[in-house]
Amino acid sequence: MPASPIRKLVPYADQAKKRGIRVYHLNIGQPDIETPDIAMDAVRNFKPKVVEYSHSAGIYSYREKLTTYYKKYDIHITPEEILTCTGGSEAILFAMGSCMDVGDEVIIPEPFYANYNGFAINAGVVVRPIPSVIDNGFALPPISEFEKAITPRTKAIMICNPNNPTGYLYSREELETLRDIVLNHDLFLFSDEVYREFCYDGARHASVMHLKGLDQNIVLLDSVSKRYSACGIRIGALISRNKEVMQTALKFAQARLSPPTFGQVAAEAAIDVPESYFAAVLNEYTSRRNVVVESINRMPGAFCPVPKGAFYAVARLPIDDSDRFCKWLLEDFNFEEKTVMLAPATGFYATRGRGLDEVRISYVLKVEDLQMAMKCLKEALNVYPGRK
Amino acid sequence: MPASPIRKLVPYADQAKKRGIRVYHLNIGQPDIETPDIAMDAVRNFKPKVVEYSHSAGIYSYREKLTTYYKKYDIHITPEEILTCTGGSEAILFAMGSCMDVGDEVIIPEPFYANYNGFAINAGVVVRPIPSVIDNGFALPPISEFEKAITPRTKAIMICNPNNPTGYLYSREELETLRDIVLNHDLFLFSDEVYREFCYDGARHASVMHLKGLDQNIVLLDSVSKRYSACGIRIGALISRNKEVMQTALKFAQARLSPPTFGQVAAEAAIDVPESYFAAVLNEYTSRRNVVVESINRMPGAFCPVPKGAFYAVARLPIDDSDRFCKWLLEDFNFEEKTVMLAPATGFYATRGRGLDEVRISYVLKVEDLQMAMKCLKEALNVYPGRK
Repeated sequence: MPASPIRKLVPYADQAKKRGIRVYHLNIGQPDIETPDIAMDAVRNFKPKVVEYSHSAGIYSYREKLTTYYKKYDIHITPEEILTCTGGSEAILFAMGSCMDVGDEVIIPEPFYANYNGFAINAGVVVRPIPSVIDNGFALPPISEFEKAITPRTKAIMICNPNNPTGYLYSREELETLRDIVLNHDLFLFSDEVYREFCYDGARHASVMHLKGLDQNIVLLDSVSKRYSACGIRIGALISRNKEVMQTALKFAQARLSPPTFGQVAAEAAIDVPESYFAAVLNEYTSRRNVVVESINRMPGAFCPVPKGAFYAVARLPIDDSDRFCKWLLEDFNFEEKTVMLAPATGFYATRGRGLDEVRISYVLKVEDLQMAMKCLKEALNVYPGRK
Repeated sequence: MPASPIRKLVPYADQAKKRGIRVYHLNIGQPDIETPDIAMDAVRNFKPKVVEYSHSAGIYSYREKLTTYYKKYDIHITPEEILTCTGGSEAILFAMGSCMDVGDEVIIPEPFYANYNGFAINAGVVVRPIPSVIDNGFALPPISEFEKAITPRTKAIMICNPNNPTGYLYSREELETLRDIVLNHDLFLFSDEVYREFCYDGARHASVMHLKGLDQNIVLLDSVSKRYSACGIRIGALISRNKEVMQTALKFAQARLSPPTFGQVAAEAAIDVPESYFAAVLNEYTSRRNVVVESINRMPGAFCPVPKGAFYAVARLPIDDSDRFCKWLLEDFNFEEKTVMLAPATGFYATRGRGLDEVRISYVLKVEDLQMAMKCLKEALNVYPGRK
């Protein structure tokens, strides 16, 4: 497994800090929003004599309560259609392992969440990327691109909606298009919807679970990490109405015994978080997004589509090589003893040579920090030797 | 992945309970010992604003403190040689994934922990069982058995010490034998030592980490689940002095982001559990073991070697088929409205046809319950139609 371009930068960030430089971290997906008290209190009040294994599919009362959460999003499922996982990560791994054989192929529009590669290697399956492009904001690639990529080994299509890294939010129409492809070729459709809560400008999230006639094809991958700003509790879910998939996934789950108990207690309580919590979070992220997108689009030669979801944006910059640029930002540049750490977009493309003039920006900092970070980026582009 | 013989029995146990039968569960490895207060209190006092991802290899202070725990067992390692995992389960999966390619073979003396099969399937590797036998208490098979099983695809030998399911405790001499095989054939040695604390009759645990000259070959697999009776916190560890193995395992760890934060907090605090805790636990388990072993050895035609470790025993019973017998115990038998649930040993053998007259007994119940369970078993053997 190759090291990701972001991880290669970490030593340079550490060295910059040692030199007294303040580094604005726009490279990671760790939100600074507080984990809701209701979740923390539940863990504090959890006083079993023995912290036992839970059911391999998760505590039943948690899965039962989860169905009420999904109902609010017009997703109607039973507790038996939910397998509680150790983070969304495990859900992805179980989905690939349960639906695909070694050597089978999954089509994923690129750029995509870099860790999908790791899970694919782990499951022995092959990722076939198809291009989504910055000029239309990274919309779903046309059907023809899917058709070109389909081979006898193709078993699944995977999307992330809203998208990490692009922030793109797939429309209901795009999902209908996917349905046709999936049905025509009898494929699985894996949909990673962990950023469901993060939809901006009044947009409503369209889930693959809203599509009709795909019960045997859809595997929904979910996590509470971003929803409740609780990445460390490691609770996710694999959801499907396909009984055979659920049975196989349960066997993977049984081999690893159970998901974490404390995390399930926190996640169950968090379902009662009031809507006002999400409204405040959404408000905050909208402001943050606006700072980033507006700032970048004012920089000469730069372009950033307006993301409608998640808390990421991919921007095109007037640079020769995003890996080199991001390293240079940490190694050779500072503006008033400050600099910015970005994720080279190359790490989100499976196709070599793509993403060279793009970076991913996570807008997970406070507005005033983002403003300063954008100021640094602007100054950096003025003096970067590899400017195009 | 085939369903395990134990899981197939669960519906029969449920039905027995519905008929008002009390079922003594000697089929599972879930201890009834209380999780130490010191661990629970640490979680209660953990009040971060955000429950963030930890480092993918685990919280550094936890790994640092773990080195002091291992020092007590004469195992000298650095925090960098520890990768914190989500349970021992993940440690096994990462070990296979990091040291072996798809199609490579791992030799494991059988009977062995049934979930090893699941992890092997997951990692795409092949388990080659070699026989250990009840007559000598399931000692390490002779070198000749290992030599017979070695092929050009053999990459590793795996042991569990003390052993689940047999309770066998490998001696220092047996480990030295393993060292020679491992060095002669340049193999990895995976050692699952999650029952380290459970050694009886004054026996001291010999770890593969005590062996000299094997730094590049040894991967220690560990978990706090049994040690602190905290199975639900899902914290384990992969430990190796082989830098390349650690680097590869870290990549698997990075793909899944981080182990559970709450569990790490509990596990770090638990390291301060006083020796008196373990002394009391050991005392309790010794009494439990003695009840089981002595009772069985008094039953005509039955034999149970005295296990020196863990909290399992494998017994030979005068029966035709352990799967049938264990099902019959739940479906057709009761003694004064009570019966016992055992694990057919067939599930712990990879070789078909082995373990037919053996069962695994987990002595995880109170002494008085175990006495009644043994009474049930004795009565059952008197009337079982498939008695040999």
